[in-house]
Amino acid sequence: MATTKENMVRVPQQVLRAFAETAFQRTGVPEDDARRAANTLIEADLRGIDSHGISRLDRFYLQGLQSGRINTRADWKVAQETATTARIDADRGLGLMVGTHAMEIAIEKAKEYGCGFVTVGNSRHFGASGVYATQPLEHDMIGISMTNTGPIVLPAGGRESRLGTNPIAVAVPVSSGAPFIFDAATSVVSAGKFETYHRQGKRAPEGWAVNDDLEPVTDPARGVTARKILPLGSDLEHSSYKGYGLAMVVDILCGILSGMGPGLSLGGQPGAFQSAHFFGAWRVDAFWDAKQFKEMMTDYLETMRQTPPAPGVDRVMSPGDIEAENKADRLKNGVPLYPDVVENLKDIAQRMEIELKI
Amino acid sequence: MATTKENMVRVPQQVLRAFAETAFQRTGVPEDDARRAANTLIEADLRGIDSHGISRLDRFYLQGLQSGRINTRADWKVAQETATTARIDADRGLGLMVGTHAMEIAIEKAKEYGCGFVTVGNSRHFGASGVYATQPLEHDMIGISMTNTGPIVLPAGGRESRLGTNPIAVAVPVSSGAPFIFDAATSVVSAGKFETYHRQGKRAPEGWAVNDDLEPVTDPARGVTARKILPLGSDLEHSSYKGYGLAMVVDILCGILSGMGPGLSLGGQPGAFQSAHFFGAWRVDAFWDAKQFKEMMTDYLETMRQTPPAPGVDRVMSPGDIEAENKADRLKNGVPLYPDVVENLKDIAQRMEIELKI
Repeated sequence: MATTKENMVRVPQQVLRAFAETAFQRTGVPEDDARRAANTLIEADLRGIDSHGISRLDRFYLQGLQSGRINTRADWKVAQETATTARIDADRGLGLMVGTHAMEIAIEKAKEYGCGFVTVGNSRHFGASGVYATQPLEHDMIGISMTNTGPIVLPAGGRESRLGTNPIAVAVPVSSGAPFIFDAATSVVSAGKFETYHRQGKRAPEGWAVNDDLEPVTDPARGVTARKILPLGSDLEHSSYKGYGLAMVVDILCGILSGMGPGLSLGGQPGAFQSAHFFGAWRVDAFWDAKQFKEMMTDYLETMRQTPPAPGVDRVMSPGDIEAENKADRLKNGVPLYPDVVENLKDIAQRMEIELKI
Repeated sequence: MATTKENMVRVPQQVLRAFAETAFQRTGVPEDDARRAANTLIEADLRGIDSHGISRLDRFYLQGLQSGRINTRADWKVAQETATTARIDADRGLGLMVGTHAMEIAIEKAKEYGCGFVTVGNSRHFGASGVYATQPLEHDMIGISMTNTGPIVLPAGGRESRLGTNPIAVAVPVSSGAPFIFDAATSVVSAGKFETYHRQGKRAPEGWAVNDDLEPVTDPARGVTARKILPLGSDLEHSSYKGYGLAMVVDILCGILSGMGPGLSLGGQPGAFQSAHFFGAWRVDAFWDAKQFKEMMTDYLETMRQTPPAPGVDRVMSPGDIEAENKADRLKNGVPLYPDVVENLKDIAQRMEIELKI
């Protein structure tokens, strides 16, 4: 049965934030780390990236922390650095937490030298890429973040998965309105998209994933378990080598430049997803006047929004618009949760003896 | 009639290089600039990017230089800079030439500070992105280059073109074998791809370009003139918002960060393509040991090549493999030219009184 909006529950973000923070702490994660990790999750929920928010708290993170596959008291450190670069060893800690530190280091370097870049190895699943990319915005900087993941995506023309969904996120400041936030897997769709289609009772279109015989997988419940998602472009005739190449760029900047190794070498199951990340920040006024830049950005995004839509399309959006609208709505009206997510949170609450008012 | 390989002529690259260099000089371009511009063109030919090489010498460059739409004696200068960044005003000069200077500046900054990034505004068409991205390789650096172009690509869900084909190129050094070179338009195909299909007498597949009624354009001769190429992903169901967002990232880093303006504001016709570019270099050993990095890269690319191919696919390639094979072949056997390109070169030779032995 498809889950409809009618049976969703709206929960204030503060409630979810406090709950996640406490849950992380109960596993042994220090207070500041727990706060950072909870913030990364709830920010994803606020922006409407439901697949990367509180719904994964238990399966992706708490279970890993409790089993020891994620290090609760990770002693992450800068293993190497220059004026503008750093490589971090995350000590198997929560990517959700180390990621925010890494971007802060990139921002500090950018303040002093114009730009900063940080790779992170030996890390664990870091949630939604876009959350990190927006950290530099308040400093009038452009942010970029990426992560590699375990191999569930086919190389263009191949029949065995050797790449992750490897997302790229880029955020750019504006003078007013929603900032530019691009956040996308380099595969044709992310794993979370199959989940969304499954919840909505929709079939997955051809060109998203294939089975071992390379036939289309249209049952969204099997899209991820088949572990053969197609690169962006879907087939060779529509330039799937581009999605393939972009996924490799991400793998190289995250996995290889951090010394950890590419996604192919990563173990991966919920609660223990190994991964490596890449973060960067460019200070706008290291190139051009920041005020003029942001005004031009605002005009630019507005021009895109004004594009006449194709028949059947409501409106053309600029990347980041949906996120901004969701955030305004959810800050005011709460984060909508599916019944199974509510059940899961109640289960965590009982198991860990945390108060939860939903 | 389709052009077949049988009626192509092989010409030594030295002949083409000297010819292009002399032709540029005859229009008034100084010797060093002419050498750089010719090198960018011939490098594209050597790598097999025929659409961006000597075939465009006349239409894209000489005609622009002779009419004054491209400045023959451009006094390009660094308008702003920090330790790691620079913004160049190209003074309407040949992008083919200014681009190589800009990347050299990025490399020098990376040598000292770990990385370097340079935007270039007020420039003209710069040829093949990938040529610049490979400049940092010999310094054990990762290179990135991008350019915006005039609006011939639709925003996802839109019916009016507001973006260029906006390519991204990334090159990464290896310890042996072909280096990683990713070089791709963020539209589903580049303008040059339609040209190639037209020469080969093939129909363009649906999902590449549409006409004013948003119906597929399958006549490759009309793919570019219709000026409605689709973003990578082709349609909303296959995530065309990703190609759209990536094209915007390129437009922002090139057009807006250089202060010139996005592709939408650019005039564009052969011989006067305005554009803005972005170049960057990261020193590998600013993050991790360069020797280990390059060895891991070589293994990584080899692993991709070893992926079992899908039925009907000869082999899985790593980005850069075709370029390396073409270069080895063409350095030895000459650059293959289509009859119409040979005719065009002979015409230039006669018009400009340059000796040409083909």
